[in-house]
Amino acid sequence: MTKQYTVAVVGATGAVGTKMMEQLAKRKFPIGKIKLLASKKSAGKDITFNGQSYTIEEATPEAFEGVDIALFSAGGAVSKVLAPEAARRGAVAIDNTSAFRMDPEVPLVVPEVNPSDLAKHKGIIANPNCSTIQMVAALEPIKKAFGLSNVIVSTYQAVSGSGINAIEELKIQSGEWEKGKDVEANVLPVKSDKKHYPIARNVIPQIDVFTENGFTYEEMKMINETKKIMHMPELPVAATCVRVPVVSGHSESVYIEVEKDNVSVEDVKKVLENASGIKLVDDITAQGYPMPIYAEGEDEVFVGRIRKDLAKDNGFHLWIVADNLLKGAALNSIQIAEALIDEGII
Amino acid sequence: MTKQYTVAVVGATGAVGTKMMEQLAKRKFPIGKIKLLASKKSAGKDITFNGQSYTIEEATPEAFEGVDIALFSAGGAVSKVLAPEAARRGAVAIDNTSAFRMDPEVPLVVPEVNPSDLAKHKGIIANPNCSTIQMVAALEPIKKAFGLSNVIVSTYQAVSGSGINAIEELKIQSGEWEKGKDVEANVLPVKSDKKHYPIARNVIPQIDVFTENGFTYEEMKMINETKKIMHMPELPVAATCVRVPVVSGHSESVYIEVEKDNVSVEDVKKVLENASGIKLVDDITAQGYPMPIYAEGEDEVFVGRIRKDLAKDNGFHLWIVADNLLKGAALNSIQIAEALIDEGII
Repeated sequence: MTKQYTVAVVGATGAVGTKMMEQLAKRKFPIGKIKLLASKKSAGKDITFNGQSYTIEEATPEAFEGVDIALFSAGGAVSKVLAPEAARRGAVAIDNTSAFRMDPEVPLVVPEVNPSDLAKHKGIIANPNCSTIQMVAALEPIKKAFGLSNVIVSTYQAVSGSGINAIEELKIQSGEWEKGKDVEANVLPVKSDKKHYPIARNVIPQIDVFTENGFTYEEMKMINETKKIMHMPELPVAATCVRVPVVSGHSESVYIEVEKDNVSVEDVKKVLENASGIKLVDDITAQGYPMPIYAEGEDEVFVGRIRKDLAKDNGFHLWIVADNLLKGAALNSIQIAEALIDEGII
Repeated sequence: MTKQYTVAVVGATGAVGTKMMEQLAKRKFPIGKIKLLASKKSAGKDITFNGQSYTIEEATPEAFEGVDIALFSAGGAVSKVLAPEAARRGAVAIDNTSAFRMDPEVPLVVPEVNPSDLAKHKGIIANPNCSTIQMVAALEPIKKAFGLSNVIVSTYQAVSGSGINAIEELKIQSGEWEKGKDVEANVLPVKSDKKHYPIARNVIPQIDVFTENGFTYEEMKMINETKKIMHMPELPVAATCVRVPVVSGHSESVYIEVEKDNVSVEDVKKVLENASGIKLVDDITAQGYPMPIYAEGEDEVFVGRIRKDLAKDNGFHLWIVADNLLKGAALNSIQIAEALIDEGII
């Protein structure tokens, strides 16, 4: 009999927490016991997991006694306090927030990209930002084959990245066609920021708050996390992150330069076709290319519109789409847990 | 008394034609007589211009007798046949289709960028593609001040660029929230192409049909037209054009490299602040940046999110938004006509 694990899900009532539980069940994760944790407000409520009803417990330090794997997705503030408490009690905390991602002591992992970093963990492993995961999943096989010397990305990010309230707001605003820019807006771009703008029939070039250099935190996450995950601290990476009126599925227009000369589009396609976790959708004669509405609910990172730059022989353009709640969050976290087991780390 | 002109509007019932008439009235264009032309199907219908009712005439070669300025926006096939007929009869044809844009004999003009090309006309002047106009309007003042050596753009284009049917389809699909990807789609990405995809809650990385090199015609228009308008045949330009569920207002994430060293963000802002037709909206402390929903109905090209690249000292990122039916089409055509008068060319 294979070993079974005690798993805690922190933030079980949230958009990502719900998807984490779905993935655990769907992928038949070897669970001996599950603990569904959330804030005091949600504690005591009943919730269904894998067809059975569970009562949500309050996420306290003591709740992690006996836990092997703790999946965190309840905001950075909760992770900052409780992930170390879980680790102290012998659990491996897999954290989906930005709290520890750039901590040099904490591995930041996409299992297809840098699985060897897992073994260096000291109790906490960080799950990268959604928009970073899908990009590095597509870029790593290209880098391995041809080298990589430049990355410029513009994103088209779904509202579900901002949680259930943002989805609800898009839904309400979508129904209020006649009101145009006069629809009520309370959630996007950033709930806690001063101003809110409509997302229906609009795009908002702000995700997360601004940093001093004029880039947003979301953009800096893509830049810094990409370098860390790919082990390329000197790689030039630039990002412009934009919210679009899509429910789920982030899309990315990515320009890259490779180091090798004379690489063809067919060469790049071949590499991606054989890459783990990637699905090539690139048949322009049949109008085949990835789109977020068709990526929703799917595990893969979809890549298409691959073409060689017309001015630079080593420049390529890619269009990368994935379900931001799955590969961009919940699925990647579960895949980290699976890799920990496969590698014999836990 | 200032001279008055006989003006023909070809395609008076279309999305852009309607906006052309609005602009002629709003800007008090010196019209002596107006002729509203359309296909045989629409001929005989009544239409209002500037508070008066007019009967639409069929657009035939003879309809251009006595016309000084003929504004074309009824599709490339109509322009190809009738713009030369109008020119032959002494009119200046200002054509909003792609029929003549890359013809070396035909000036392709954004009045703020290359007004001096107008004098070279031989009866036909082309109005550039919507997504090109707003980009070159923002890039020309930067080029003049600092030089320009590289352009990479990803677009977020509104459905109104595909006409009234596309707006209607987005409206219907927006109301059918529960259907998700199963909504009916008949118009986008390209009405005459084989497959159609939903645009509500989706983004589609195809505008116009594909060319052999893997870029779409829309992308090639941006690439080739930018070089022609800016008189920079060797400028590296790359484009990825994407349709988003926005009614009106194209947005563009643009990466550029300038030739001069040590240019600061403040330098770029100052140049754009003083540029004709540009409105700088760039105050991140107050979440000030351009968005399509607020650009709708406005004449200016809005620029914001200006920041220096973190890896390349001469690299800058810009976010450019304009109403694609106004500066991107109808308004630019009328501004061409105004410039012809101002320069004494007609």
